[in-house]
Parts: sequence; C-alpha cells; structure tokens
Amino acid sequence: MTYCVGVKLNKGLVFMSDTLTNAGVDNLSHHKKMFHWHLKNKCIFTLLASGNLATTQSVVNQINESNKKTRTKEGILNTDSMYKAATIIGEYLRCTISVNKKNEQQLSNNPYSATFIFGGQIYGETSKIFLIYPEGNFIEASNEEPFLQIGETKYGKPILLRALDQKMSFQETIKLLLVSFDSTIKTNLSVGLPLDYCDILNDKYEINRSLRINKSNQYFNNITEIWESSLKKSVENLPNFDFDENHS
Amino acid sequence: MTYCVGVKLNKGLVFMSDTLTNAGVDNLSHHKKMFHWHLKNKCIFTLLASGNLATTQSVVNQINESNKKTRTKEGILNTDSMYKAATIIGEYLRCTISVNKKNEQQLSNNPYSATFIFGGQIYGETSKIFLIYPEGNFIEASNEEPFLQIGETKYGKPILLRALDQKMSFQETIKLLLVSFDSTIKTNLSVGLPLDYCDILNDKYEINRSLRINKSNQYFNNITEIWESSLKKSVENLPNFDFDENHS
Repeated sequence: MTYCVGVKLNKGLVFMSDTLTNAGVDNLSHHKKMFHWHLKNKCIFTLLASGNLATTQSVVNQINESNKKTRTKEGILNTDSMYKAATIIGEYLRCTISVNKKNEQQLSNNPYSATFIFGGQIYGETSKIFLIYPEGNFIEASNEEPFLQIGETKYGKPILLRALDQKMSFQETIKLLLVSFDSTIKTNLSVGLPLDYCDILNDKYEINRSLRINKSNQYFNNITEIWESSLKKSVENLPNFDFDENHS
Repeated sequence: MTYCVGVKLNKGLVFMSDTLTNAGVDNLSHHKKMFHWHLKNKCIFTLLASGNLATTQSVVNQINESNKKTRTKEGILNTDSMYKAATIIGEYLRCTISVNKKNEQQLSNNPYSATFIFGGQIYGETSKIFLIYPEGNFIEASNEEPFLQIGETKYGKPILLRALDQKMSFQETIKLLLVSFDSTIKTNLSVGLPLDYCDILNDKYEINRSLRINKSNQYFNNITEIWESSLKKSVENLPNFDFDENHS
C-alpha cells in the first residue's frame, strides 16, 4: 500500500509520499514514489504514484523516454498546458494497465492498476494538481478541495479536511501532512517511513525544497509523541456529556 | 454505510452506532442498528449491526424467535456462555447470507453480507465483546485491542487507537466515541445522526444507560466545533520543522 498527498496552497504546491511497497506482508521493499521533471524557467512537474509498482515504473519510464525524443512525439516537457501533460500521463497509464488486462472497461479493480497525483506549473498558466485515475481520466484540485490523496487515504483524511487552509505556509503544511501520515502509518502496516517531501513556489518552475524524512528523524519522532499527548488532552478537555439531560 | 463501535472497559461495556441506512445516495432511511436482550440477574446482550438491512433484520428476528421457544431450540437467553451465544448468532448470520448466495465460500463480498458486534455478560462469566463475521466466525476484544469497529471504520480509528484506555469512565468514553463518530460523519455522507449509545456495568446484567443523540443535540454540536478548533490549535502548537537541518 501507499499514501501520497498533493496540496494546492496559495503560494504554491506541496507533495508528500511514503516509500513502502509490499507484495504481501512478507515481501516489503522501499521504492521512491515521487518523481520530478523540469525545464528551467519553463515548467516543473511532480508525480506521486500509488498502485502496482511495475505499472507505475513503466509509466515513469515512458515519460522519460518521450521527453528524450522531443521532436518525434509530444513529451510532457513539450506541452503548453498542465491539462495536456495530465492527458499524456493518463494515456500512458491506461494503456499500461490495458496491456495486462485486455478489453476491460473497468481498470481500477485489476491487479495491475495504479493511480497518480500529478502537479506542477507551465509558464503562462497557474500551478495545478490532478488526480489521474487508472482509466486515464483525471480530476483537478480546487479551492473547495485543495488537497488530493491516493493509496490508503482514509486514516489521514479527517485531519486534512479540518485543518488544511490554502493560506498556510509550507512550514505549517509540512506539520499538518506529517500528522496525517503519522495517523496512517500508525493504523496501516503497509504505509511506512521514509517519507519524501517537496514544495514548489508559484512562478519559479523548479523544486523549492525536497527532503526525505527517515526513521531516525528526531523531528518526526517528536511530532508523533507530542501529537498523541495533545490529542489525549484535547479529548480530556472536551466538556462533559450530561447523561441525565440526554437520557432517553 | 454504517459505523458502530463496541468498547470493553474495566468497569463494563460501551456501544455506539449510527442509524443511517442507504441503498444508493438517493435512498436514505434511518434504522436502529442497536438491539438488546436480557434476563434479569442472568444475562444482558447488545448487538450492533452493519451491512445488508434485510440480512441484519432477519438475524435479529431469528434471535427473537429462538428466545420465544425456550424449550425447543437454544436461544441466546438460554446459553450459559457468551461464546455459545456468539456461535448461535454467527450461525444465523452465515445461513441467512448463504440462502441468498448458495455455495459461496467467501460471504463477505456479497451484497447480502453483514457483520455484527455482539457483547454482554452472562452470570458466571466476565463481560465480553465479539466481532462476528459474515462467515459466522468471530473474534473477541481483548486488553490489547479493547475496541471493535464495523462498517466505515477507518476515519474514526486513529483517535481510538491513540486515546482509548480501558481505565476510562463511561463519561470519558462517550466523549471519545463522539469524536470518532464526528470524524466519520464529516468524511462519509452515508454515516449519520442520530447516534445510539448504551453502556453496561459489569455484573449488573442490564443496560445501565441508553440514549439517542440527534441532530438538535447541543452537546454534540458543541463537541464538533470545539474538537475542530482544538485540532487546529494542536497542529499550530507543534514545533516548527527545520527545513535547513533536514534538507537533502
């Protein structure tokens, strides 16, 4: 399993992904699920991958290949809109899954399936984030829904729904994302450290910060402890339920 | 969808369930998912139901019927152990699902499937809670895993994992459960108020408190507001991430 989040803030984009990959509980390995492409002063792209590792690695390789042959076929680095770039990746994804399971309409329930978060900015456009489905179609994050999740999304969703605000700084956002990842890691064995993080400032067309948070990261270990005790205190501090008044 | 939780505290048992039932998003109704049976000074049982409504209502009716014919067939009120009572209910459940889909080994992925939380106490035993699967088998809550969930379990699980303690009072537990239900209701349209709550004191063989929390419940509305602002404050109060120190 996997957990990845992409966030569209007012000042730019933030991405976080775990690195644990499993085929059964006895076959664990670590693979990067965050990929970047960029052309200086022209475009920056980040891709987060969830699902079948052969599928996602194949799509990443197809993106790399198409970017080499800049004149013969349109690669994402040659497009002039995020919409076109997402369409290209969606098509790679749909075709890659279809090869393994032909003539299937429904690609999401198949063992070769995968899902992407794809975000970035192309010169002349605002920055955007998409969630690309196995069928190749996609949805875009908006001001109403400023974050997108893939993989094991449920455990870490309530805190994002409640606390995420597009006006947040990268500093505030990384704290919130680490809490969301911590909730997920605590409840699902197949999501795990190290975590990859990156952020992109609007109109800069490059990765602003990129870092890896591993098991020995003192900050993450502190956060998990402080968060747990802070949650317990928050529950304790809730007003008491009046059983007599509410008795049925 | 449904969300139900059963908790085994040191002082007794606590149960909470929502009441929303849906067949598609345009067919919503409210049905009780919490049921009780008891014999004074002898036994008390509570059942929480998730899944196909026809299946769960059928099982509840079969339990009622078997309790009427006390001499001809063993009803749960006539058993001398929680294990036997859970086995009876598990068998009702497995048979009811099987009638609708014959010769299936795997009963959990079928549209007539259902799952129960079943707890209580019989004179001579300690109080116990079981999670009964569609196949009729079951697992028991323990000191290591003092709570059981059925239905839409993921959104509300992290807070229970972190804050639940068997030494808690009923007062503390209802607060925690309301937070867990609030997280679930906020993220899943098909889980909704009113909520049913009950608790059972050890060695009393009766429902201690039973109440319904509906949309106009001022306490629940307060809790959701206070919890949200408290979470935001907790995130804000986390120490800042040192980007420079962690830069890769």
